[in-house]
Amino acid sequence: MIIHDISINIEEDMIYWWEGKKPEMRSVFKIADGAPSEVTRWLLGSHTGTHIDAPRHFIEDGDTVEKLPLDIFIGPARVVDATTADDAQIDAAMVEKANLNGATRVLFKTSNSTKLLTKKDYNPKFVGITDDGAQALVDAGVKFVAIDYVTIEAPDQCEEWPTHHILCGNGVIILENANLADIKDGTYFLCCLPIKLKGSEGAPARTVLIEGIEC
Amino acid sequence: MIIHDISINIEEDMIYWWEGKKPEMRSVFKIADGAPSEVTRWLLGSHTGTHIDAPRHFIEDGDTVEKLPLDIFIGPARVVDATTADDAQIDAAMVEKANLNGATRVLFKTSNSTKLLTKKDYNPKFVGITDDGAQALVDAGVKFVAIDYVTIEAPDQCEEWPTHHILCGNGVIILENANLADIKDGTYFLCCLPIKLKGSEGAPARTVLIEGIEC
Repeated sequence: MIIHDISINIEEDMIYWWEGKKPEMRSVFKIADGAPSEVTRWLLGSHTGTHIDAPRHFIEDGDTVEKLPLDIFIGPARVVDATTADDAQIDAAMVEKANLNGATRVLFKTSNSTKLLTKKDYNPKFVGITDDGAQALVDAGVKFVAIDYVTIEAPDQCEEWPTHHILCGNGVIILENANLADIKDGTYFLCCLPIKLKGSEGAPARTVLIEGIEC
Repeated sequence: MIIHDISINIEEDMIYWWEGKKPEMRSVFKIADGAPSEVTRWLLGSHTGTHIDAPRHFIEDGDTVEKLPLDIFIGPARVVDATTADDAQIDAAMVEKANLNGATRVLFKTSNSTKLLTKKDYNPKFVGITDDGAQALVDAGVKFVAIDYVTIEAPDQCEEWPTHHILCGNGVIILENANLADIKDGTYFLCCLPIKLKGSEGAPARTVLIEGIEC
């Protein structure tokens, strides 16, 4: 069994979406101060690091994190290398070309993983999914889709957010900030486990791709 | 494949360890206020809900969460029903009786799961693991051990914390607040994924036990 951790570290100086606040780690108890143990407390946006968007993120009565059935998050998943020479956005034609063949969980690897995700500052020139790409994923029966940057929305759509509306409106789970730099195109066993934040529209989710599991 | 979610909800009014602070959910953006999406931010102790203790919790130079190899957290695991009529603590004799047979991941189910974990107030009359029980686990080669309440420490040891010192000092990962109420004695495929809080001595970890995986 080979476990690939595709999660990024959560730390104070990390990549974050343009309007968001970075996390804060606060010390509560320290052994050096005479406490029996180390204890910290964190101030974390729900969209920190490798995290999921629940339908509630864009749909006012959509499901929140604790209500999502875990069978969407665990099982076979396709990694699609969508890297192009010109860093093109992922549109309907690219989704069709990926030949998903009924895959319900899809992770798109782009140049974001190597070029942007490791940098600490937000860069608006990233690769996302266009509105017609999102609709093509819904039409193909995809239930879980991942991208390797802070948002899955194509950059020039970040005012109306149609990709999010289409995915959240159809109950598709979104994973953002997945680090796919070392992952090859292929099928893996996905295990993506968002912490169970009741009433939340998103949650950090440690995520692994496993080779060698039969199911 | 059957997925058992053994994680408890993280919410403002939840069970918490005696000295700890409960989590806070803060609204950042609301659709009702004209924002394009819902966004929340959470203030979370590292030991909130179903969570792991990394060695750093009690060992000043012990490993923090992001450094822990994930192969400890993923793989076959034994659930041991350690429920007794008198709610006895889990000691070396009980560990021996469990006949672990080389299991490296062990989850102890006690009356805590049904009697205490669902209550919102801390109750000092819980079942934990005694110091000699912890040493017996280390001697048996256990690398991951779970309990179904806020701390794995036997209640009358919660001043000197010897069970934590023994486990953390030997690199054994601790999972606390695992809800085993509906889980039967047996072997499952464990997937416990702590969020990757860099430099932290603990982290919330969504945790599942899966039936039907061969590995």
